[in-house]
Amino acid sequence: MSNKNKKLRSQGWFGGMNKRGFLHRSWLRNQGYPTYLFQNRPVIGICNTWSELTPCNGHLREFAEIVKKGVLEAGGFPLEFPVTSLGETVMRPTAMLFRNLASMDVEESIRANPLDGVVLLTGCDKTTPSTLMGACSVNLPTIVVPGGPMLNGKFKGGEIGSGTFVWQIKEKRKRGELSDEDLLEAEICSARSSGHCMTMGTASTMACMVETLGLTLPGIAAIPAVDSRKKALARISGKRIVDMVKEDLKLSDILTRQAFENAIISNAAIGGSTNFIIHLQAIAGRIGVDLKLEDFDHLGSKIPLLVNLQPSGEYLMEDFFTPEGCRLCSKRSKTTCTCTP
Amino acid sequence: MSNKNKKLRSQGWFGGMNKRGFLHRSWLRNQGYPTYLFQNRPVIGICNTWSELTPCNGHLREFAEIVKKGVLEAGGFPLEFPVTSLGETVMRPTAMLFRNLASMDVEESIRANPLDGVVLLTGCDKTTPSTLMGACSVNLPTIVVPGGPMLNGKFKGGEIGSGTFVWQIKEKRKRGELSDEDLLEAEICSARSSGHCMTMGTASTMACMVETLGLTLPGIAAIPAVDSRKKALARISGKRIVDMVKEDLKLSDILTRQAFENAIISNAAIGGSTNFIIHLQAIAGRIGVDLKLEDFDHLGSKIPLLVNLQPSGEYLMEDFFTPEGCRLCSKRSKTTCTCTP
Amino acid sequence: MSNKNKKLRSQGWFGGMNKRGFLHRSWLRNQGYPTYLFQNRPVIGICNTWSELTPCNGHLREFAEIVKKGVLEAGGFPLEFPVTSLGETVMRPTAMLFRNLASMDVEESIRANPLDGVVLLTGCDKTTPSTLMGACSVNLPTIVVPGGPMLNGKFKGGEIGSGTFVWQIKEKRKRGELSDEDLLEAEICSARSSGHCMTMGTASTMACMVETLGLTLPGIAAIPAVDSRKKALARISGKRIVDMVKEDLKLSDILTRQAFENAIISNAAIGGSTNFIIHLQAIAGRIGVDLKLEDFDHLGSKIPLLVNLQPSGEYLMEDFFTPEGCRLCSKRSKTTCTCTP
Amino acid sequence: MSNKNKKLRSQGWFGGMNKRGFLHRSWLRNQGYPTYLFQNRPVIGICNTWSELTPCNGHLREFAEIVKKGVLEAGGFPLEFPVTSLGETVMRPTAMLFRNLASMDVEESIRANPLDGVVLLTGCDKTTPSTLMGACSVNLPTIVVPGGPMLNGKFKGGEIGSGTFVWQIKEKRKRGELSDEDLLEAEICSARSSGHCMTMGTASTMACMVETLGLTLPGIAAIPAVDSRKKALARISGKRIVDMVKEDLKLSDILTRQAFENAIISNAAIGGSTNFIIHLQAIAGRIGVDLKLEDFDHLGSKIPLLVNLQPSGEYLMEDFFTPEGCRLCSKRSKTTCTCTP
Repeated sequence: MSNKNKKLRSQGWFGGMNKRGFLHRSWLRNQGYPTYLFQNRPVIGICNTWSELTPCNGHLREFAEIVKKGVLEAGGFPLEFPVTSLGETVMRPTAMLFRNLASMDVEESIRANPLDGVVLLTGCDKTTPSTLMGACSVNLPTIVVPGGPMLNGKFKGGEIGSGTFVWQIKEKRKRGELSDEDLLEAEICSARSSGHCMTMGTASTMACMVETLGLTLPGIAAIPAVDSRKKALARISGKRIVDMVKEDLKLSDILTRQAFENAIISNAAIGGSTNFIIHLQAIAGRIGVDLKLEDFDHLGSKIPLLVNLQPSGEYLMEDFFTPEGCRLCSKRSKTTCTCTP
Repeated sequence: MSNKNKKLRSQGWFGGMNKRGFLHRSWLRNQGYPTYLFQNRPVIGICNTWSELTPCNGHLREFAEIVKKGVLEAGGFPLEFPVTSLGETVMRPTAMLFRNLASMDVEESIRANPLDGVVLLTGCDKTTPSTLMGACSVNLPTIVVPGGPMLNGKFKGGEIGSGTFVWQIKEKRKRGELSDEDLLEAEICSARSSGHCMTMGTASTMACMVETLGLTLPGIAAIPAVDSRKKALARISGKRIVDMVKEDLKLSDILTRQAFENAIISNAAIGGSTNFIIHLQAIAGRIGVDLKLEDFDHLGSKIPLLVNLQPSGEYLMEDFFTPEGCRLCSKRSKTTCTCTP
Repeated sequence: MSNKNKKLRSQGWFGGMNKRGFLHRSWLRNQGYPTYLFQNRPVIGICNTWSELTPCNGHLREFAEIVKKGVLEAGGFPLEFPVTSLGETVMRPTAMLFRNLASMDVEESIRANPLDGVVLLTGCDKTTPSTLMGACSVNLPTIVVPGGPMLNGKFKGGEIGSGTFVWQIKEKRKRGELSDEDLLEAEICSARSSGHCMTMGTASTMACMVETLGLTLPGIAAIPAVDSRKKALARISGKRIVDMVKEDLKLSDILTRQAFENAIISNAAIGGSTNFIIHLQAIAGRIGVDLKLEDFDHLGSKIPLLVNLQPSGEYLMEDFFTPEGCRLCSKRSKTTCTCTP
Repeated sequence: MSNKNKKLRSQGWFGGMNKRGFLHRSWLRNQGYPTYLFQNRPVIGICNTWSELTPCNGHLREFAEIVKKGVLEAGGFPLEFPVTSLGETVMRPTAMLFRNLASMDVEESIRANPLDGVVLLTGCDKTTPSTLMGACSVNLPTIVVPGGPMLNGKFKGGEIGSGTFVWQIKEKRKRGELSDEDLLEAEICSARSSGHCMTMGTASTMACMVETLGLTLPGIAAIPAVDSRKKALARISGKRIVDMVKEDLKLSDILTRQAFENAIISNAAIGGSTNFIIHLQAIAGRIGVDLKLEDFDHLGSKIPLLVNLQPSGEYLMEDFFTPEGCRLCSKRSKTTCTCTP
């Protein structure tokens, strides 16, 4: 799996005591970097999909700073770079149109720059597959930090799913159940914190996908964006990627056929979005794993649905992460109890 | 030039009290935006080429915050978005390979999102033409804030030009005039502050180009990145773009043939980079102005060179902005005196 | 209540075209402030108790930026300043020892500087009374933005109150109910987001106190720190303080005896901390309202306790803000149902 | 000089697996700190005098982040805290009135909190002695990072000293040599970048004082605030303080009588401000070194003035750091040449 004495890729830029080395180091030093940063330190690119036009990813600048702390603690040299960010909720006609463009940003940014490892900061639907597709084409050691869902929405004494509620508005308005005032109130009630959709929509599905592919720290996908444990794992992800560079643990070492099969099975168990198929195939294509539509049928069709989450079910991602149990049936997890219809 | 009662483009997203309006407002509000921000305010996109891998643009996050203050003061609603950032000094094989990719990022990000006006934050060589090319294809009201050159480099009691010095290294090393220690010292001495190359290289040329095209506030191009006056003009640029939206003053209203001719003449007078030709033609193509190679000859060949700046001359951008005069000949501007060879 | 044509206090610093005016404007402009900022704009001091050693206030830098946006939208000129921050959970022997020192910081910082109005950003227990005491001694128009409680703690399938749990640890450890691993796990489970204690301890009591005194926007106190509505109200608070300066609405105009009586009655209804008495008296003393210990007895002793919150009751601040109702008894608010013991 | 196996002071807070340890760790973890940060890492307090009302220190938030990177690289756990910030140019009647109040902030903040070492971020005149006085009273390992002077002011083709010019305004105005427009222009011309006064006024004197006392990295005092080398040294200062904690190298180990004598002699050689005497004596008093007014006479009166800096001389701090030499006399350093009167 590894070749520990391999020369760092970044030293091809920074290692020379000549014109070329000067060129690559000098301008970077206008940010105040001491010489030691260029001497045999794993250079970790933080690929950030932050944008104020992608609200689901609006907290990822803070997360980039946290990841950098972990990189520094492990002896790495973190350098953050931006890519086009795809915000599902405002882009027209649809963010899907730009998934492949964004993947080119990521691919070229990684390949052209002096990076030894990469951290992908993701959130809204397309920001996960687009960054991962680009990263696969370069195949450096890579870890994903999914930004996490919003807290459960709360509206008029009940809970409200960020994506699911949208589809009810038209009918509610027709029936006069949603005044202008209520509509505006519901907007911030269903988006009451940083993070992406907190139903098992595409964003949550993609976060679970990268975790079940083995590309994140275990247990990170479902943690809400504003939860302190998300930040703790983001920091530890920064430490981990430095070790992955030392281990020379590349994407292709992790993204085996077995990893894809595990993701398909897991997705069936959690009732993930059907967009899963489109994106997973694109990722498989980039890394060279042969994945057919039949594989999804074959592997997933007999897996029981284990969780009770919107849009198909009742609960939300915050419940998936911190099951409080049901007071009626005493089952520990609200997402697996069945006593409420 | 304008149509002041035109409905704001952004209201096509934010103006509806229906499912669609809910969809476009709700997620954005997870950042804490009150309702009034979505009601008939010019929405200004801040297109940021900040990246830690593009050191020349490394201060542009701070500049984005400053521009936003100006936008808010003028009653606008600023929303920052990132695009792929092209760092000349580290990207391989060359940032030029990605200029058009970056221009696609900008074009699609502007067109797909609820923006009424745009501020382009630029710095390193290709970040100016790439963002402007993309913006031209959409043709909204747009202003450019060039990030500004580094302070004059200082090394061993003399001045040192950021780009120019690189070409001397090989010879100096051969002749033994530059030890390892000196080489490392020169790195930070020639990149001693935030900003792009402070010779009249491509970055400075591009900044002067957008100013002489009429796309910036007057006098902004040569101000060093760390100068307080740069920040003041960045803030006022934020105010100005809101007025430009109200005036419906689009790129095509400014980028007339006369504007391009003015840029060509000015470039000849300041001895701008030959890359000017490549990029100006690409911009003209996007906005639909017919510009031929002969135009550059015809307009520029008889214009006298008015300044004495590296790489062809002696001085640096900080001198171009704040001429201190020459103590020997008493001319007010160092860049126009001739008494030192 | 007001004198709308009163000259702005800050113009006593910034208004002169002489040596003194130069002195007061020039250095400030090193941050890039254009001239118009010094010309008859209400200058709003943002008094920030942010500190990484006061974790309950650790999000207040972000809040300061949000408040500034509101100030700018309303035509004001915001300037943030820090004061000593008192973190209850780490300071020894107790943060109370330094409450009066911190109040001196606030008083002198406001009086000595060119401010027309003040926003107090508060959170942990002593940071509210200390800043308010200092502000009262100067008596400018002042608004408070309480930082908000943490989300409900969650541990082993149940909820866990940030302060209350601490008192149970010793006994649990004795009985072997809390392993080392559990202890460490509980730490982040009971502090799972930004914000202060989410029981009705001193921090929540102080937030409710300033709201019932009339010093905040209505409804802000109980909103969790990470809730988007908290940010929206912080922004609107920034707009409001500019209007308060125009209305010349000073602390002494709001902090009447009636305001103090309202706070005492409200505190009894919500079962606020007994520290309320100590701090409210100190505040009354600063603003010149005669408040006696008997007043607390007289006004509060017959008020029924309306909420069911830890430490005396069962629920937590997130429930106080967004009552989800009880599934057993169908009451809308968990904090007012009684069917669980 | 040291006791390397001494238990870390911070472990008295964080080291216990009991109620007290829980109390001290739990709330801090709401910022996302993993468990390993509390286990035997030197905890470094970053004492920040940043304030938007102290423009000379307005860049110190950025510096705090840079220092933290160095602390992390060396295995420490950085925690930033604010203290009252004294801005000479706007506070009334004078910042000197509050020097001792600010020193109490620093003293109590260090003593009451779980710190093993301290970094003082200083700038404007009183922010250096006030923070150092407070730190001396606690006597932990402590390093100072002076924020650095502004770039040389430039006005109408000449240079302009930030403090010195103020005294000329009254006369210039009387003689009609300074129009309203010029006055406003001069404001930003003499404060053209981040940093403190760039004459050898009190701020520069204090920065040189801490360097000659041995409390900073060598060579840091004169570097302009916006110079990349300042940032590099700030980062290395963060690394150094972690080692100082390991070496148990306290302020009292460095601030010997010899250190004070060195500072007095150096101050005479550079023509430092007379405020030096007031502040150095206060510092000596805190650390227990007996310093008399006669010592200043005795040690300093025969030391030749070696530099030619405003207000007594001609040049400015940027020249002191990067001597470009004089073109007339060919001396390498402008500050030591004498051919211009």
